[in-house]
Amino acid sequence: MDRKELFGNILKKRSFLCIGLDSDIYRIPSFLKDTDDPVFEFNRGIIDATHKLAVAYKPNIAFYESLGSPGWLALNKTVDYLKANYPDIFLIADAKRGDIGNTSKLYARAFFENMNFDAVTVAPYMGEDSVSPFLDYPGKWVILLALTSNRGADDFQYHPDDKNSLYRLVLNKSQSWADRERMMYVVGATRAEMLSEIREIVPDHFLLIPGVGAQGGSLDKVAEHGFNSSCGLLVNSSRGIIFADNSENYASVAAVKARELQQQMESHLYKKGLL
Amino acid sequence: MDRKELFGNILKKRSFLCIGLDSDIYRIPSFLKDTDDPVFEFNRGIIDATHKLAVAYKPNIAFYESLGSPGWLALNKTVDYLKANYPDIFLIADAKRGDIGNTSKLYARAFFENMNFDAVTVAPYMGEDSVSPFLDYPGKWVILLALTSNRGADDFQYHPDDKNSLYRLVLNKSQSWADRERMMYVVGATRAEMLSEIREIVPDHFLLIPGVGAQGGSLDKVAEHGFNSSCGLLVNSSRGIIFADNSENYASVAAVKARELQQQMESHLYKKGLL
Repeated sequence: MDRKELFGNILKKRSFLCIGLDSDIYRIPSFLKDTDDPVFEFNRGIIDATHKLAVAYKPNIAFYESLGSPGWLALNKTVDYLKANYPDIFLIADAKRGDIGNTSKLYARAFFENMNFDAVTVAPYMGEDSVSPFLDYPGKWVILLALTSNRGADDFQYHPDDKNSLYRLVLNKSQSWADRERMMYVVGATRAEMLSEIREIVPDHFLLIPGVGAQGGSLDKVAEHGFNSSCGLLVNSSRGIIFADNSENYASVAAVKARELQQQMESHLYKKGLL
Repeated sequence: MDRKELFGNILKKRSFLCIGLDSDIYRIPSFLKDTDDPVFEFNRGIIDATHKLAVAYKPNIAFYESLGSPGWLALNKTVDYLKANYPDIFLIADAKRGDIGNTSKLYARAFFENMNFDAVTVAPYMGEDSVSPFLDYPGKWVILLALTSNRGADDFQYHPDDKNSLYRLVLNKSQSWADRERMMYVVGATRAEMLSEIREIVPDHFLLIPGVGAQGGSLDKVAEHGFNSSCGLLVNSSRGIIFADNSENYASVAAVKARELQQQMESHLYKKGLL
């Protein structure tokens, strides 16, 4: 999916919501646990109930990997189900991978060939040759970690003298690796006040913004500082949607929560003159 | 396995060799491809032929992940086989994971609970709370990326004014997260000339050194600059050993290559007065 199509879907759905499928086996409703593949069944319920409200889904791979081989099967089935039934969804593997070139190639194969993800999140620590193998797939995206939503972002990414911050170096340098048609950046919603400065460095790129909801980030602030003329935002919510209820009604409650966010997003898109 | 036991194994085997099980399905001998689990059979052959020469094995997880669910099964079987038959082996998951705390917990579960690895390589970009969940397992190790062996290390890790290098910040700051009994660092053999400076910051820690062999690093230089009084080095070779031959004799040729490295290591251990 290219940038234009993604923007088109945002306008069509009046939403820039990404739903995080962080489908922790210990938190999914108990009635699903007797099914053959509880994690996939859980995901299918969430997806069917929310797909009109979201433009993207983002399974965090850790939740599947922690289940071993059956977890990878559940992930495969989720990807296949989404692509077969809702082809307009932008599908992100939140994997935060990155290794020497020879090895990153294999991670790229895992997410782009074996599974039909549109994008993978990649950690920048090892530099260009750890990222470029993911860019060898036409039409696929790298979403590079820039400024993350967690407390530990202050350890290395952020420097009190902001000019020397590592996240700025990552944003600046990586623009020579791929343009806005192939690369996005992760910026935590908990750092929304820094989005204005980030927009000075990457005015045209899409940003993937986790941290709204359970982690305390504000959608209003993200919209205030982060929009560009093609929206340029995918705002993710995971736990606040998918675990809003753990009864048999979990999917419809998830849809209510997703609808709340979608309506706030629609209002921001209007205010910005994009709708 | 604690630091003392690891050092004991190094003295007993007269080796600080780590063998990288980067078992690329496209490179393993063709006669194995008719077996039920070619990757596991390949690994078993390598392990049986080389276990007396190495103190550690290090599967790079990308090679297994790229095969999907069957790859994870092969990895599981390899871990179980090593632990059941050669309990004195230090087993490293080269995964380069790292995510917000809530999520890193699940990666830790994958490698330390579901599979009985002794250590996981972790990327430091997201800071302390992305690393600490791996430290919640007594007796298990974090091996933090510091200065990697690839060209891209120059993009962010290394700064021409070395004092401000990110890898130095990582080495300095992370010492407050865990001590030499729980943490090691990755330093590429291709950067061997920088090991003396690194030893000033982390004199007592073990270093995992990839990049000898196919990537061009020199064992002599690593030994010259990297030793400490407990050896303090695990030097990894992957392709140079496991793919030295692709006939039915692959395992015995791998043993010859491993023996060459072990003998050089023995000689360095003697010269250093450790044997």
